Amino acid sequence: MTELLKKLQWRYATKKMDSAKVVSEEKVDRIVEAARLAATSSGLQPYEIIVVKSQAVREQMKPKAFGQSQITDGSHVLVFAAWDDYTPERINMMFDLHNTERNSKDEGWENYRKMLLGSYPTRGAEVNFQHAAKQAYIGLGTALIAAAFEEVDSTPMEGFDPKSVDEILGLGAKGLRSVSLLPLGYRAQGQDWLENLKKIRRPVSEFVTEIK
Amino acid sequence: MTELLKKLQWRYATKKMDSAKVVSEEKVDRIVEAARLAATSSGLQPYEIIVVKSQAVREQMKPKAFGQSQITDGSHVLVFAAWDDYTPERINMMFDLHNTERNSKDEGWENYRKMLLGSYPTRGAEVNFQHAAKQAYIGLGTALIAAAFEEVDSTPMEGFDPKSVDEILGLGAKGLRSVSLLPLGYRAQGQDWLENLKKIRRPVSEFVTEIK
Repeated sequence: MTELLKKLQWRYATKKMDSAKVVSEEKVDRIVEAARLAATSSGLQPYEIIVVKSQAVREQMKPKAFGQSQITDGSHVLVFAAWDDYTPERINMMFDLHNTERNSKDEGWENYRKMLLGSYPTRGAEVNFQHAAKQAYIGLGTALIAAAFEEVDSTPMEGFDPKSVDEILGLGAKGLRSVSLLPLGYRAQGQDWLENLKKIRRPVSEFVTEIK
Repeated sequence: MTELLKKLQWRYATKKMDSAKVVSEEKVDRIVEAARLAATSSGLQPYEIIVVKSQAVREQMKPKAFGQSQITDGSHVLVFAAWDDYTPERINMMFDLHNTERNSKDEGWENYRKMLLGSYPTRGAEVNFQHAAKQAYIGLGTALIAAAFEEVDSTPMEGFDPKSVDEILGLGAKGLRSVSLLPLGYRAQGQDWLENLKKIRRPVSEFVTEIK
């Protein structure tokens, strides 16, 4: 089995974390860095990550997430927050960043910018938010893997009230909407009912179709 | 730099693939296996992967994806296709699979099943499809990473007409809707304009906010 498959087998949605253990800042930084490097549609990176270490803020978040204990028993919560819309300013910001960083201006690239400017902002905020949220899920999936490589446990969560979390973190003013939470910590060995249960996935024959 | 970060730096959305090179079935299998092991909300795995190797079928798909050459220059295309709805049958199928595989019936688990059965099917097909599509993006992000670990190039694509691709692959009859394509192959060295360009990402200071 390859290293990546081993890590995917090792990880699970940890239900009980050890509140005495703290994930090092170096590990958190590398997990976030993996998400930062992840692919996004047209390279727009239409989301941000809020790293909540503050115990007080995590205590505020917990009741808005059905009291899930990992939020406060872990040491950090990554909040994946997608752009609430694709605005011309945001699209131009990323295209300009490309030009500055690559010190070039390419005609094909500028035509592509025009195409996005002519289509995305007119699709409506909700369509754009849903599109941005999907890109954030690529980052979430990447962060999950990065955590496993760091031997850090994590629990991807959708079970929370996004509006309340947005309010606690002041995301609305930044044009962001929370889409998923990822508490980071260490499993409370022997106290997590899910720890030793078999990972269940549909068999390949029901998940994959080959067209040869 | 960790191995994972190296792989994320190595990969890029390959624009020109070498049509003479074929990705081995072993590598394709491991890439798909990584996606199969990826996390999904409530473990429902609400999507499937269609592995299109057939040159004829890929030729049919290409014009429905703005003629992007990777679809036929690569050797395989992974099609990520999300459930078009969360039906009671689908939810029960996954909960039953858990019970069978773990040879147990847990009260908390059964209550969770009832909760999903009482909420998901009533939300409407479009909301459910969008939710399922996000889970497929976790799989897409995982497959991208798995391809990089196999030193296989890949190009995540949203630029295609999903209805046409669904028709070509007969996905409608299976209750599936295509959400993204991932051609697999090998970069055509020296012929890909993007190959040696700097990877552009927003700096950490603009992508990450820490709440200490």
